[in-house]
Amino acid sequence: MAKTADARLAALEDHEAIRAVIAAYGPLADAGDAQGVAALWCADGEYAPAGYRVAKGRGEIAELIEGETHQALMARGCAHVLSSPAVALNGDEAVATNHSLVLRRKGDGHEVWRASANRWALERCDGRWLIRRRDNHQLDGTAAARALLAFK
Amino acid sequence: MAKTADARLAALEDHEAIRAVIAAYGPLADAGDAQGVAALWCADGEYAPAGYRVAKGRGEIAELIEGETHQALMARGCAHVLSSPAVALNGDEAVATNHSLVLRRKGDGHEVWRASANRWALERCDGRWLIRRRDNHQLDGTAAARALLAFK
Amino acid sequence: MAKTADARLAALEDHEAIRAVIAAYGPLADAGDAQGVAALWCADGEYAPAGYRVAKGRGEIAELIEGETHQALMARGCAHVLSSPAVALNGDEAVATNHSLVLRRKGDGHEVWRASANRWALERCDGRWLIRRRDNHQLDGTAAARALLAFK
Repeated sequence: MAKTADARLAALEDHEAIRAVIAAYGPLADAGDAQGVAALWCADGEYAPAGYRVAKGRGEIAELIEGETHQALMARGCAHVLSSPAVALNGDEAVATNHSLVLRRKGDGHEVWRASANRWALERCDGRWLIRRRDNHQLDGTAAARALLAFK
Repeated sequence: MAKTADARLAALEDHEAIRAVIAAYGPLADAGDAQGVAALWCADGEYAPAGYRVAKGRGEIAELIEGETHQALMARGCAHVLSSPAVALNGDEAVATNHSLVLRRKGDGHEVWRASANRWALERCDGRWLIRRRDNHQLDGTAAARALLAFK
Repeated sequence: MAKTADARLAALEDHEAIRAVIAAYGPLADAGDAQGVAALWCADGEYAPAGYRVAKGRGEIAELIEGETHQALMARGCAHVLSSPAVALNGDEAVATNHSLVLRRKGDGHEVWRASANRWALERCDGRWLIRRRDNHQLDGTAAARALLAFK
């Protein structure tokens, strides 16, 4: 059955909202807005960078931004640059894949520090699209990193 | 004459679908999903990287991913990062321009290997937006590379 | 009050148009299309790269592309790569934040020359979404650079 105009509008709005959540991460992270970053996740959402402890809930996610590593990067000059996600939408849930680059200042220019794969599980939490879990793995030649980018 | 609400919805859906095709390339390429990459093209679509043979049809496009060069990049650790395209939509055809970066692992970080111009001819094939032809040229200072990024 | 279908459509079209303006900048700049770049701004729009004179109006913005620095970059081989913007839409005005990278050719590859923060004030000028002012600051560890990426 053909989708109604309302369902088509709603699907476009879902894509726009999901894109907005992911596009906000880099600017907020580099602005050092820990609460703003945390608010992109569901209250009990998770951020799982491979090789580190999983941050659980907004408090722990905010601590990543407030923590020594991120603050040192910011003081040196850094850019968290994310590519446009490929999004598979399924009702009130979605999975998105994309790349993230972390650049840091070197001399009077910048160098790429890390290039990573990302897999985002998103969900409509409290009526808004937010991040349920972000998995991140440096693209280091391992199958585990590549698997994050695979479509199911 | 003003566009009808249905035509406006359809144009938005076209933009979303075109964006989705281009956003899927990088994740699928870095996941090593040769069939997934090939399925982004029309059955007889072409991928034309400057200085190399033009890959014609899905079989030859899949071979690029399965080939030695790409597999070696994947084993080392690589990221094919594409920027958001500028899209000119014209009925059942569209032209999109953007940049692509290929990063590869170096030490415990990454380096940019190539920065290229891309021009995508897209088409509604079998009712879906797919790639008719992708032209790609490293931004090496030549007019041929710059020309791919020009609007007509 | 719930938004009408027409208002929802119009908001989606606004987001699409704003994204298109920002996505066009990099390709047009690297194609060397000075008039095309300038036409992305309102007639009296401004481009304010930190540490340089503010370019005021389309004539001065076109001169940036025609100028010696940009032409030398183009002759060497360069890529102006912008990330997807986070957009706050407010009637006929919008603010967008994102990153921009400038890469330049080095050997047979490329290096990142600059990674910068951008803040775009956009406006509906003459019925089209265009740039009122672009602020740009290299992410050099200063608070001024980071402030461009902050949400209000």
